[in-house]
Amino acid sequence: MELIIGPRLYSTWSLRPWLVLKRAGADFTAREVSYRTEEQKAELRRLSPSGFVPLLKVDGETIWDTLAISEWAAEHYPDAHLWPVDPTARALARSATAEMHSGFPALRDLCGMGPDHPLAGEVRSTAPSDPALDRDLGRLVVLWRQMRARFGVNGPWLFGDWSIADAFFTPVAARVRHYQIDLGAHGDVDGTARAYVEALLAQPDFQAWEKDGLANVA
Amino acid sequence: MELIIGPRLYSTWSLRPWLVLKRAGADFTAREVSYRTEEQKAELRRLSPSGFVPLLKVDGETIWDTLAISEWAAEHYPDAHLWPVDPTARALARSATAEMHSGFPALRDLCGMGPDHPLAGEVRSTAPSDPALDRDLGRLVVLWRQMRARFGVNGPWLFGDWSIADAFFTPVAARVRHYQIDLGAHGDVDGTARAYVEALLAQPDFQAWEKDGLANVA
Repeated sequence: MELIIGPRLYSTWSLRPWLVLKRAGADFTAREVSYRTEEQKAELRRLSPSGFVPLLKVDGETIWDTLAISEWAAEHYPDAHLWPVDPTARALARSATAEMHSGFPALRDLCGMGPDHPLAGEVRSTAPSDPALDRDLGRLVVLWRQMRARFGVNGPWLFGDWSIADAFFTPVAARVRHYQIDLGAHGDVDGTARAYVEALLAQPDFQAWEKDGLANVA
Repeated sequence: MELIIGPRLYSTWSLRPWLVLKRAGADFTAREVSYRTEEQKAELRRLSPSGFVPLLKVDGETIWDTLAISEWAAEHYPDAHLWPVDPTARALARSATAEMHSGFPALRDLCGMGPDHPLAGEVRSTAPSDPALDRDLGRLVVLWRQMRARFGVNGPWLFGDWSIADAFFTPVAARVRHYQIDLGAHGDVDGTARAYVEALLAQPDFQAWEKDGLANVA
């Protein structure tokens, strides 16, 4: 099984299924591809039905899209409980994950990750002042606070035990760190959202990803 | 169980889970909300955690996001086989569905649905000429042709029996119709994609939705 990923230093969508497969205990290799030169782009088009990463190559098939890979992993490794066991928590975890999958456009555009704005390392930047970004951050804080209040009694995650939703929000935590976003200014009155960000950044799997990404920097 | 939807005449995201729940044989009511006036927007914010429709109200909970509602329905109505039974077909159907969920931005922006561009009825428009739109349409044609060739032997759908993927592409069929898009100019050399669009438009559930939408027009 091979997960084809973009550059570890800034491919936020690649990080998500990588975290999911790690949690699942899957036996897989990760192959990092670039898409800067025309030659690299042509190679990616050969590999990828949609033209995007990540892709999971398994049993001669290609599963494209982060969420589809995550659902495949949830089915394939049922003992890993990648979605919450409780049906209500699972439906809400899928709602939050799907909202991240298609939403938060201002956060993704205005606090983007790229060669100059890496997921890892000590480089820091500043978030622009923008009403759409404020709305996205306010919504994230509300969502995180509500779910932490309801499901977070026995641990640091969003829906009880660690779930795919936490993988989906890990790159957001990296954006909050990189762009030095003060969540307190966006409704995080008691530090709940900040603590969740810290828990995501402290995941050993995320830190291993960061280390691998930085190891490739010239 | 109540599905809260946007205006039937143009809320493409509301149509999708409505089709899924209909196929599931779910016992539900649909409540159409508008969001033009400030008062309506405030009411929507009260109803909706994310500020968007659709929402499914069930057992005192609110499931938000079209894909999360669809996954809930697939779990809740297993006999309806809303995802393909075959694991490979299911993983690919989820890939195509997730690609629609987060992708095709040019198609959605440049061939949008709204008060002047309804899903239903005889109004027609013309698609603008745009390279990003051409890429989205070319990708759709490739995807549909590949999946129809592989899974479409015994019926008109994308992955064998009707699935959530077909619900997700139904609004695309309405866009193709409304914007009078010639799929043949986008790689549909043998009419496979065109026939798939026709099959989606011919769904009795879709036609019932159209009829209900048009019934509300003054």
